[in-house]
Amino acid sequence: MAFSGITTFAHLPTIPCLASKDSFDIAIVGYPFDTAVSYRPGARFGPHGIRDGSRRLRPSNGWSMHWKFNPYDGRTTIVDCGDVPITPYDNKLALEEMEIAYDTLLSRPTESKPHLSLPRGLDDKAHPFVVTLGGDHTIVYPILRSLYKKHGPITVLHFDSHIDTWTPYKIPSSTSQISEITHGTFFWKAATEGLIANNSVHAGIRSKFGGPFDLEHDEKVGFDLISADDLDTMGMEGVLGRIRERIGQSPLYLSLDIDVLDPAFAPGTGTPEPGGWTTREIKRLLQGLHGLNFIGADVVEVAPAYDHADITSIAAADIIHEFLSLFIH
Amino acid sequence: MAFSGITTFAHLPTIPCLASKDSFDIAIVGYPFDTAVSYRPGARFGPHGIRDGSRRLRPSNGWSMHWKFNPYDGRTTIVDCGDVPITPYDNKLALEEMEIAYDTLLSRPTESKPHLSLPRGLDDKAHPFVVTLGGDHTIVYPILRSLYKKHGPITVLHFDSHIDTWTPYKIPSSTSQISEITHGTFFWKAATEGLIANNSVHAGIRSKFGGPFDLEHDEKVGFDLISADDLDTMGMEGVLGRIRERIGQSPLYLSLDIDVLDPAFAPGTGTPEPGGWTTREIKRLLQGLHGLNFIGADVVEVAPAYDHADITSIAAADIIHEFLSLFIH
Amino acid sequence: MAFSGITTFAHLPTIPCLASKDSFDIAIVGYPFDTAVSYRPGARFGPHGIRDGSRRLRPSNGWSMHWKFNPYDGRTTIVDCGDVPITPYDNKLALEEMEIAYDTLLSRPTESKPHLSLPRGLDDKAHPFVVTLGGDHTIVYPILRSLYKKHGPITVLHFDSHIDTWTPYKIPSSTSQISEITHGTFFWKAATEGLIANNSVHAGIRSKFGGPFDLEHDEKVGFDLISADDLDTMGMEGVLGRIRERIGQSPLYLSLDIDVLDPAFAPGTGTPEPGGWTTREIKRLLQGLHGLNFIGADVVEVAPAYDHADITSIAAADIIHEFLSLFIH
Amino acid sequence: MAFSGITTFAHLPTIPCLASKDSFDIAIVGYPFDTAVSYRPGARFGPHGIRDGSRRLRPSNGWSMHWKFNPYDGRTTIVDCGDVPITPYDNKLALEEMEIAYDTLLSRPTESKPHLSLPRGLDDKAHPFVVTLGGDHTIVYPILRSLYKKHGPITVLHFDSHIDTWTPYKIPSSTSQISEITHGTFFWKAATEGLIANNSVHAGIRSKFGGPFDLEHDEKVGFDLISADDLDTMGMEGVLGRIRERIGQSPLYLSLDIDVLDPAFAPGTGTPEPGGWTTREIKRLLQGLHGLNFIGADVVEVAPAYDHADITSIAAADIIHEFLSLFIH
Amino acid sequence: MAFSGITTFAHLPTIPCLASKDSFDIAIVGYPFDTAVSYRPGARFGPHGIRDGSRRLRPSNGWSMHWKFNPYDGRTTIVDCGDVPITPYDNKLALEEMEIAYDTLLSRPTESKPHLSLPRGLDDKAHPFVVTLGGDHTIVYPILRSLYKKHGPITVLHFDSHIDTWTPYKIPSSTSQISEITHGTFFWKAATEGLIANNSVHAGIRSKFGGPFDLEHDEKVGFDLISADDLDTMGMEGVLGRIRERIGQSPLYLSLDIDVLDPAFAPGTGTPEPGGWTTREIKRLLQGLHGLNFIGADVVEVAPAYDHADITSIAAADIIHEFLSLFIH
Amino acid sequence: MAFSGITTFAHLPTIPCLASKDSFDIAIVGYPFDTAVSYRPGARFGPHGIRDGSRRLRPSNGWSMHWKFNPYDGRTTIVDCGDVPITPYDNKLALEEMEIAYDTLLSRPTESKPHLSLPRGLDDKAHPFVVTLGGDHTIVYPILRSLYKKHGPITVLHFDSHIDTWTPYKIPSSTSQISEITHGTFFWKAATEGLIANNSVHAGIRSKFGGPFDLEHDEKVGFDLISADDLDTMGMEGVLGRIRERIGQSPLYLSLDIDVLDPAFAPGTGTPEPGGWTTREIKRLLQGLHGLNFIGADVVEVAPAYDHADITSIAAADIIHEFLSLFIH
Ligand SMILES: [Mn+2]
Ligand SMILES: [Mn+2]
Ligand SMILES: [Mn+2]
Ligand SMILES: [Mn+2]
Ligand SMILES: [Mn+2]
Ligand SMILES: [Mn+2]
Ligand SMILES: [Mn+2]
Ligand SMILES: [Mn+2]
Ligand SMILES: [Mn+2]
Ligand SMILES: [Mn+2]
Ligand SMILES: [Mn+2]
Ligand SMILES: [Mn+2]
Repeated sequence: MAFSGITTFAHLPTIPCLASKDSFDIAIVGYPFDTAVSYRPGARFGPHGIRDGSRRLRPSNGWSMHWKFNPYDGRTTIVDCGDVPITPYDNKLALEEMEIAYDTLLSRPTESKPHLSLPRGLDDKAHPFVVTLGGDHTIVYPILRSLYKKHGPITVLHFDSHIDTWTPYKIPSSTSQISEITHGTFFWKAATEGLIANNSVHAGIRSKFGGPFDLEHDEKVGFDLISADDLDTMGMEGVLGRIRERIGQSPLYLSLDIDVLDPAFAPGTGTPEPGGWTTREIKRLLQGLHGLNFIGADVVEVAPAYDHADITSIAAADIIHEFLSLFIH
Repeated sequence: MAFSGITTFAHLPTIPCLASKDSFDIAIVGYPFDTAVSYRPGARFGPHGIRDGSRRLRPSNGWSMHWKFNPYDGRTTIVDCGDVPITPYDNKLALEEMEIAYDTLLSRPTESKPHLSLPRGLDDKAHPFVVTLGGDHTIVYPILRSLYKKHGPITVLHFDSHIDTWTPYKIPSSTSQISEITHGTFFWKAATEGLIANNSVHAGIRSKFGGPFDLEHDEKVGFDLISADDLDTMGMEGVLGRIRERIGQSPLYLSLDIDVLDPAFAPGTGTPEPGGWTTREIKRLLQGLHGLNFIGADVVEVAPAYDHADITSIAAADIIHEFLSLFIH
Repeated sequence: MAFSGITTFAHLPTIPCLASKDSFDIAIVGYPFDTAVSYRPGARFGPHGIRDGSRRLRPSNGWSMHWKFNPYDGRTTIVDCGDVPITPYDNKLALEEMEIAYDTLLSRPTESKPHLSLPRGLDDKAHPFVVTLGGDHTIVYPILRSLYKKHGPITVLHFDSHIDTWTPYKIPSSTSQISEITHGTFFWKAATEGLIANNSVHAGIRSKFGGPFDLEHDEKVGFDLISADDLDTMGMEGVLGRIRERIGQSPLYLSLDIDVLDPAFAPGTGTPEPGGWTTREIKRLLQGLHGLNFIGADVVEVAPAYDHADITSIAAADIIHEFLSLFIH
Repeated sequence: MAFSGITTFAHLPTIPCLASKDSFDIAIVGYPFDTAVSYRPGARFGPHGIRDGSRRLRPSNGWSMHWKFNPYDGRTTIVDCGDVPITPYDNKLALEEMEIAYDTLLSRPTESKPHLSLPRGLDDKAHPFVVTLGGDHTIVYPILRSLYKKHGPITVLHFDSHIDTWTPYKIPSSTSQISEITHGTFFWKAATEGLIANNSVHAGIRSKFGGPFDLEHDEKVGFDLISADDLDTMGMEGVLGRIRERIGQSPLYLSLDIDVLDPAFAPGTGTPEPGGWTTREIKRLLQGLHGLNFIGADVVEVAPAYDHADITSIAAADIIHEFLSLFIH
Repeated sequence: MAFSGITTFAHLPTIPCLASKDSFDIAIVGYPFDTAVSYRPGARFGPHGIRDGSRRLRPSNGWSMHWKFNPYDGRTTIVDCGDVPITPYDNKLALEEMEIAYDTLLSRPTESKPHLSLPRGLDDKAHPFVVTLGGDHTIVYPILRSLYKKHGPITVLHFDSHIDTWTPYKIPSSTSQISEITHGTFFWKAATEGLIANNSVHAGIRSKFGGPFDLEHDEKVGFDLISADDLDTMGMEGVLGRIRERIGQSPLYLSLDIDVLDPAFAPGTGTPEPGGWTTREIKRLLQGLHGLNFIGADVVEVAPAYDHADITSIAAADIIHEFLSLFIH
Repeated sequence: MAFSGITTFAHLPTIPCLASKDSFDIAIVGYPFDTAVSYRPGARFGPHGIRDGSRRLRPSNGWSMHWKFNPYDGRTTIVDCGDVPITPYDNKLALEEMEIAYDTLLSRPTESKPHLSLPRGLDDKAHPFVVTLGGDHTIVYPILRSLYKKHGPITVLHFDSHIDTWTPYKIPSSTSQISEITHGTFFWKAATEGLIANNSVHAGIRSKFGGPFDLEHDEKVGFDLISADDLDTMGMEGVLGRIRERIGQSPLYLSLDIDVLDPAFAPGTGTPEPGGWTTREIKRLLQGLHGLNFIGADVVEVAPAYDHADITSIAAADIIHEFLSLFIH
């Protein structure tokens, strides 16, 4: 039953993916890290929250009208790897722990099922598809470092109300090297290391900025920016076309900051921005991304302390259901 | 004043409708039952919550711009019958209690006012129009049994994120006969007894399923399915046209599960499904149903323990205001 | 940092505007008054809540994609004047205190910056632009009295789910003169004193009414009424056109009751009405008002006791950011 | 059932006590007034909240181990009179409305049951015993005015964290006559009119003061002050002895501000003071008051917007159960 | 880390105890059942909530100053068995499922460690010690049925604000056989079957009753009643002495309804009763029970929907820590 | 008024103490730091929350019955210094920022008022008394480093449920040097640097431990441990005597972790421990410390995201009122 049992994502089996060498196709893994946030912390409880929000998903309840299949039907081996142990006291160490963990997950044997086209690296070897439960958005920096080793520069499709390519000039009282890497700058950091391909896309942006230089820099770093309002002016198909055209078949990492949703739909987050998209719009946008060449995905910035009645967590879990459907499709 | 006095729906008079034989045209009655739910219970407090949410409606404040009349203006005798006593310990007994209560309400004398066209049974006798405050959705099974005795098979217009026609195969650890009747299977049960007409309609559906067989069975049971996304593709008029065409002038029971709303608009419910309709959309859809041949209605699955600032309860009360307007119109 | 320091609006400097005679261009001032409300009180904490909601706005984070400038960049002198001391025990006295305070603010010297066209009274003298943080909506009556002394009859653009032009017949148990002035009647009161110009506009209306006479009276008082549903039928451009055409270049006071938003977006308010506009829609509507002749503005009816995770307060602060952008633009 | 039906206090019958002239022995009546508070408003919803909190009390569940009888057993006619209509806009008018309503209730015929010794006025006529559900504490001023007409100066036993005898010097920005009467000054006002006997008692006091003059004035007004800490130094019996000795058999009005409880036990109030008594202590203190000459009682300052899981409301209802037991005993 | 990983009780290993035949000494198992409650449901989420509340307990953090050992140190094999699948639709079936599950757990092989004196049945065979996470209190009826098969009549030490020996006369609208078994009557039911020894004890009782007959019946059923107030009059040692003397070395089942705590300490429950014990008092009472002959234990009635900041869940987990310490000691 | 104005602690004046060189006697300063916590973060909002909780304290309302004076009466110059800018991204840098800020505050000129005996360093120079609003408990490490420079080894009186002298062995996945300094180890770190005098005292301890070695180490580090239960066995006077005797007239730093309160009284914190002291007990203990030689104080670990109705914040502010009274006394 949905309310019963030890809680894993969608009641999937859990295995200690970092310790054991079992094979799997898709790994769901928590990155309970939140010590690089600029406002409300609490996303360390994000993986826990999203698992709670996923309880009504389960092998007997996973077939959707849009996708017309059930990702938990057993054809695809999906496991919940639990959470990566990450220090909450030292961001430098934490970034290393997160990168090593992702390396490890990517190195696990896959099951090479005929129906499933797993991500292939530059060496043409298949590796598992990892869906990461954040954690604050900074976790994407070590993830990109890890994926880069397999794929070279990564195209990113980034749903967020913030660009997260800010240069560290924006951070007061934070002059040290490690304090330059935050949930608002990690894409800048990744770009300085050449990890991001220049056909990346932001979608849903609506935060305030330091000035026009933020956007100029953003473009230089490789992103096309689709604002929240663009959905009203371009329509669903317009937005999807712009995304698909830019990205083509590049190896694509999908990162979704839950604050891309309006705070009414996702109050449980750290830096909410009014004027966002609805869950219905996000789901339709995701459904329109079928056929892209996904190599990994995440949902980040779920902070359950600010949630109510699990609505943010449930939305996050539902979005991951779309991810799984998108990928397996 | 809105915040003052013993709380009845919209400050309407309350009478003990089951005990006394007073006449009325429209009865508002609570069915505080929630022991057939698959996830978060608490809808037994739904009638209490909806009454709380209705406090700003009252005889001096009921005229709406859309309908251009006030259902509480005294022309129509609307009473709040309070709640039906229903056991929370034995669903078999509870179903009997609910059916008998509805029979009793339907048998009460009406006031035969010229402006009002009350529901007429197969025997052409008028009976009151009952608006039931749930309670979990299972309450509709005994209601349909009761209405069937007056009208024969009932066409149902069902707003919900779930189809509720699931066959009991979906229920784990529940092999007994009574455990087959739940808030997810009651329409299946009703259909097995021939209570539902085959021109029924679901609207707002977006839950996950066991598989395509759920939808095949659903159609067989008599429902046309309008998904949440259909509103985006067909538009408001398209959806309304499809509903009106299918239903025509069949005797129509209107059942609205509050989870048809997106969780942002109705967090106070047991099985929220992201990606739903807004209150503004639901109200416009309801307003477009004028002229249909309504014989009864309900709002179910309001669970105040999960609500915040009464927003779910207030939305539910407002929806009932539309029901009253629709019916009296 | 956003989470750090004594809280003022957008981390702006605070000065005791009533006591000191410093010059400024734009004043943000709290009117913590809530003793003229018909349902849930608590808006006396509105100024406090909105300041809390504004914490992520700041000089280093105020440039928006739509407006392409940062109102906190120092070119315009914006100050947070703190709150006006207002008695919570005697509405007659409170109204006087509020009017005197506004008179005082309007009399403060301005900085006459070339880029900024400050409001000019009938005597062609510039005075500061005041953004008031309510407080319940009644605060607009003394504000209009004060502005009238500078400008004569004021055109009002009023975003709300309620018309607030009700005559006192609606108020039970309240036969005294002072009890006639409430958050639902203050526009009636202002109209009886000739303070409102007859090309005023309501936008977002969707409450219930006593009867059609409420609307007839509303029109007589000088308002054109744009209902919440009108946005669906007329579209964004239609609504904006209707507003702009009616208002032209009249001296315009902008009053926004946070309950114009749907309760999902703004639960923290006293008299929520389902079926409202989204924050995204409101922001787009406000952006479409550029070039009107604004002379003052407010956001009222934020009641933090009913808010969750600051979503109402954050939306209110964001709306004020649009106001500042609209005015400085 | 406890969760079922129209909510009245303890599921007692409700009658329109102000309009009808039915007889009763004990009246429970709501005074939904909260426009004379110095901090968090919301006690206008106190009567509603306390009724909600009383739902598990009922005729079949009212016998307590301490009192060994059930006040709802039918021997005593207890009715829920609903709420008095009180304007929230004009405190002067509101005070009149509250006094007239109390006069009316006191004038209702009683049932003169042999087991019950109803309060007798100076004219030796019996009148009903009224338990008032506040509302903010100011409601006690019109109540004392009303009771004074029957009994002359009233001895008050006042449970509170605040003395509420402050002179109006404490109220900033409030120079009018009506603004002198607040939930912190009403006992001062009552004393100036000679309504309070000089053997009154405060219990549970722990707030801060303006200075020693507050306590000097308090004593002059007629109160002995038992502080929250006195319970630790004098013990339960010491406190009770001091109360009983001072009060003797004077006609006694019992007023309990829910903030006498520590905020952990009663978060749902406007001016919480840490360091208070527990519900267990308050109940034991009340039980020790048997045999005093009670002529009326209230529980005030319950503000449900700040409550959680109804714990404040349930405590308030339980305290009223002790009141009823104390009086009927 | 405390906030990381798949959540089991105190981060203990989880095994499918019903399906696999692994040995263990102590089983922690959830009974997510809540369909026999008289007021607020939600205890089906109790096991989930208590596991959440236990997250700061773990092998590296389990040594307490009072007990001077760490139950999770590995000497004792404690496992988290997850939850028993229990139907939420049919109480008759649910009771069977719960009894069979307990039978199964009791039949699992133990590890016979020298330091541990496991419960021995009448046949002198050792069986595991089971700590059950409720679920509503009704779950104790099938547990007693199961234990009775091993031990004969069971002495019960029952911490609760309610006696739970009520005869079914108290249940309105519930005339069927199964509806006689509720969270308020299960001890009556157990007694009718001879499952309870006549030296049982209630502790913490303070609810209201139907009349003195409830207490007379309670005594007949085998319980000595220690009221909440008895702690004040008898003191900690007095209460402990009375318990120890009555119970001696009888095989003892320990059942703790979280509502024995005052609602301030445990808001997250269905039928809170003001005037209860503090967590500090309960812990000291439990610590004073060392050396009794425990054969099983539970914590029931945790309803997380009504909890705040996990305080109820954390208290419940801490109480279970005392249980484990008491038993292993 | 209490609800009005820009929020500073107790409505005291605020000055930029780090930037300006104004003199003062007592500084209240926020340390919004929370990136060294082991469980629920959020104490960065502690200073903001405590200021909110202090709003009912003010110059006109600060005289207490126990102390018989008002710390805000102007005789003592108390200022609110706002918050120290502290990076949330790099704990090494943050520790430096915090130490430098404290150094700066200690170096500010004092007002040398005759009634006040300010702390004097080893050089016999007076420096201001600083009350720090945490922030997580780690902030005490840089504070002790700063105070050590003035006073040499500091005696600490530490109210907490945790000892916070743990050696870093307890921290998983945290092998770097900076990750050794956390809110559970900072006293260990301080001790390794000789900052703590060996007559320090813990009070209120009740957490779990790794083993007896934790306590052995704790004693070695210089602490006497008074457990939460010791209050029950030794009584208020016993505890106070033990504290006073050990500490004598040593220069004393007073650190109060709000989790010393039971979670019922202080839910708004990160690592709540059931079984704690009440606010009334803590206040009485603090009052019993008069005459000790205080050189600084803090309240830490207030995490408003987990608070309800400000009860934790209000308790924290009230405790600071006791601190100010204790020190000025
Ligand atoms: Mn982001
Ligand atoms: Mn973001
Ligand atoms: Mn549904
Ligand atoms: Mn349904
Ligand atoms: Mn308004
Ligand atoms: Mn409004
Ligand atoms: Mn009071
Ligand atoms: Mn008080
Ligand atoms: Mn129980
Ligand atoms: Mn109980
Ligand atoms: Mn600490
Ligand atoms: Mn601590």
